[in-house]
Amino acid sequence: MTDWQPSGVITITTDFGHKGPFAAVMKGVILTRFREASVVDLAHDIPAHWPPEAGFWIHRSYPYFPPGTVHVAIVDPGVGTDRDILLVEHDGHIFLAPDNGLLAPLLEDAGRIFKLENDSLQKLGLGAPSLTFHGRDIFAPLAAEFAAGRLQPADVGNETADWTPGWLEDPEVMSDRVSGVVVTIDTFGNLISNIDGSLIQDFKEPIVRLAGHDFDIKPTYGRVKPGNYLALINSFGVIEIARAEGSAADGLGSERGAPVVVTDKELP
Amino acid sequence: MTDWQPSGVITITTDFGHKGPFAAVMKGVILTRFREASVVDLAHDIPAHWPPEAGFWIHRSYPYFPPGTVHVAIVDPGVGTDRDILLVEHDGHIFLAPDNGLLAPLLEDAGRIFKLENDSLQKLGLGAPSLTFHGRDIFAPLAAEFAAGRLQPADVGNETADWTPGWLEDPEVMSDRVSGVVVTIDTFGNLISNIDGSLIQDFKEPIVRLAGHDFDIKPTYGRVKPGNYLALINSFGVIEIARAEGSAADGLGSERGAPVVVTDKELP
Amino acid sequence: MTDWQPSGVITITTDFGHKGPFAAVMKGVILTRFREASVVDLAHDIPAHWPPEAGFWIHRSYPYFPPGTVHVAIVDPGVGTDRDILLVEHDGHIFLAPDNGLLAPLLEDAGRIFKLENDSLQKLGLGAPSLTFHGRDIFAPLAAEFAAGRLQPADVGNETADWTPGWLEDPEVMSDRVSGVVVTIDTFGNLISNIDGSLIQDFKEPIVRLAGHDFDIKPTYGRVKPGNYLALINSFGVIEIARAEGSAADGLGSERGAPVVVTDKELP
Repeated sequence: MTDWQPSGVITITTDFGHKGPFAAVMKGVILTRFREASVVDLAHDIPAHWPPEAGFWIHRSYPYFPPGTVHVAIVDPGVGTDRDILLVEHDGHIFLAPDNGLLAPLLEDAGRIFKLENDSLQKLGLGAPSLTFHGRDIFAPLAAEFAAGRLQPADVGNETADWTPGWLEDPEVMSDRVSGVVVTIDTFGNLISNIDGSLIQDFKEPIVRLAGHDFDIKPTYGRVKPGNYLALINSFGVIEIARAEGSAADGLGSERGAPVVVTDKELP
Repeated sequence: MTDWQPSGVITITTDFGHKGPFAAVMKGVILTRFREASVVDLAHDIPAHWPPEAGFWIHRSYPYFPPGTVHVAIVDPGVGTDRDILLVEHDGHIFLAPDNGLLAPLLEDAGRIFKLENDSLQKLGLGAPSLTFHGRDIFAPLAAEFAAGRLQPADVGNETADWTPGWLEDPEVMSDRVSGVVVTIDTFGNLISNIDGSLIQDFKEPIVRLAGHDFDIKPTYGRVKPGNYLALINSFGVIEIARAEGSAADGLGSERGAPVVVTDKELP
Repeated sequence: MTDWQPSGVITITTDFGHKGPFAAVMKGVILTRFREASVVDLAHDIPAHWPPEAGFWIHRSYPYFPPGTVHVAIVDPGVGTDRDILLVEHDGHIFLAPDNGLLAPLLEDAGRIFKLENDSLQKLGLGAPSLTFHGRDIFAPLAAEFAAGRLQPADVGNETADWTPGWLEDPEVMSDRVSGVVVTIDTFGNLISNIDGSLIQDFKEPIVRLAGHDFDIKPTYGRVKPGNYLALINSFGVIEIARAEGSAADGLGSERGAPVVVTDKELP
């Protein structure tokens, strides 16, 4: 196992929204410990207390960051209770999050998974955090230390195979049918599912069904007239239902969690 | 023609809003290629699929950035179709945007305008982008390479004089009357027009008309009582209609595109 | 008095929201003067023209930034009128804001307070700002110069003991009762008061009253069932009224300025 090699980049994903200085003080703590850090806000508009969207986006986004990046995710209704904190080392990146299912999309294939130990945090001077803002008092200082190359994963806890499962079931895959759910909605109202395009690669003529409607798969938005709907395999590799120059979410009245089913129209 | 001299600073302007990691992964791609880049979010709340506001703000904002800054703008309903991408070198800055009228306020006076060539993108390893997120797959890597000083404009395409015109007409200018439109509205509800203050510099007593109301021009918001309306030449040099400690947009019910007319009350 | 020792970090707090490039051009001005600056957005969703929330958050947040950080705050309805600008040097940090009560939470204990002088601004080339955007034309360049270590506080003005008081009264403190107000509401709908936890440290059984309801103080959100209310001393040290996995603001219909009273149930 090679040592952790940091890039100095840290991403932050939260459900804090944009009111108040909550993400900012995390950056302050990071810069106090490691002045050369580059901190990138991955997303702060995760729906409050809903970890699956944070995990989905981190899983799909991390490959676009430099190897050696530390990804911190705080969607943490259990802060201050006895919930654990996980550190995942995977594909040359480090991921830090509460053990509440958030990191599930990464955990199944992850390289190494550690559970943070109180003893280790005590030694690092992080043993007396506030009970309501571990983002600032545990996650940010740890991220800074890892980004600065002053810590290795084994310094903060022990490897574990015991972690909280994700809140969403994995897509159900059959030979001619794959079922999943809408996991997030972007600013344009595009409905983004958890169905990876690879799951339907053998389909001859895939049809995407959502909210009682069927959609053909097109390469890009501009291939239908403005106002018309389409499905596509989006730039993060998953099935998306969109409306050209409009909002599919508004038009279809669909929300996160809505079932999405892909079938193969042309059965052999 | 002197060579391009980068500052290492990159600005990003989009209609992505703040949901999801779309701007963040652009930053990840940039930092992967050029760790020393400083990336500034110029604006992400451009109305979806409406390029004129992005072009207006970039045109009015770029002089406040260091010479050698790369400005990327993604308001791109035609992504993945055969629309072109423009690179503009102007006043020591570089501007990258889809050829959809976005950069119109810059193009008329621009130093050099290039159209990106697929051959050049192929050579740079950018020849197989996703069909729906060129911001991440073409614009961000190019911005990083220009900001790092590893590319010159002629490396990515050929000069052109053929580009898509802007969506808004230029203000109509007569000796005693100038007409334009509201091009953007800020958080305070100030209605900001595309009429440059220089166009009315010879007016003896300019009166600004919007939505059937006439407004005098004052130097600053605090010169009228809270709740009262005023017009002013704002800090970006254009005519703005405002309401002291209130929202002119809400009070007047005006939207982007609303006609603004300035006349000279004191005709000779 | 030791010299000002900069960290190179600058924070920006405004009521600009996220529409338009207003915070971005401040960063452009900073990077033009000091390319190595690290600029952190503290908060931009301060309610328009309401300085107390900006001052509250800056006062409670600055200790999490490196010593030598410059904190700029622009909630400035009087921009362009004859209101003054204050520079506060306190605890190794510098704070720049309009003299409109914004910095009140810091001023009572502040190390040194300076009023900016027009003569000094003239000498620095900042004597002809726009009348509507001093954030860009005065605050940002000064912040850059201080962050770069090229200015000391006495270079820009004279010490003063004359400043505009805050808009909120300090909490009223009696032996068995402390009264304050809600000063801000976060994304979760938590109602955050200006009552420091130290003011009730001798209370045997504190009860928090807001909007006609009484709340017990708990250590953290997870100690009541989802949907239930609680009070707590939050991670910034002040009394907060919250609802586990819900919005206390929505549930109680409370706004900024609402009275909060803490009494001691168990009187001796």
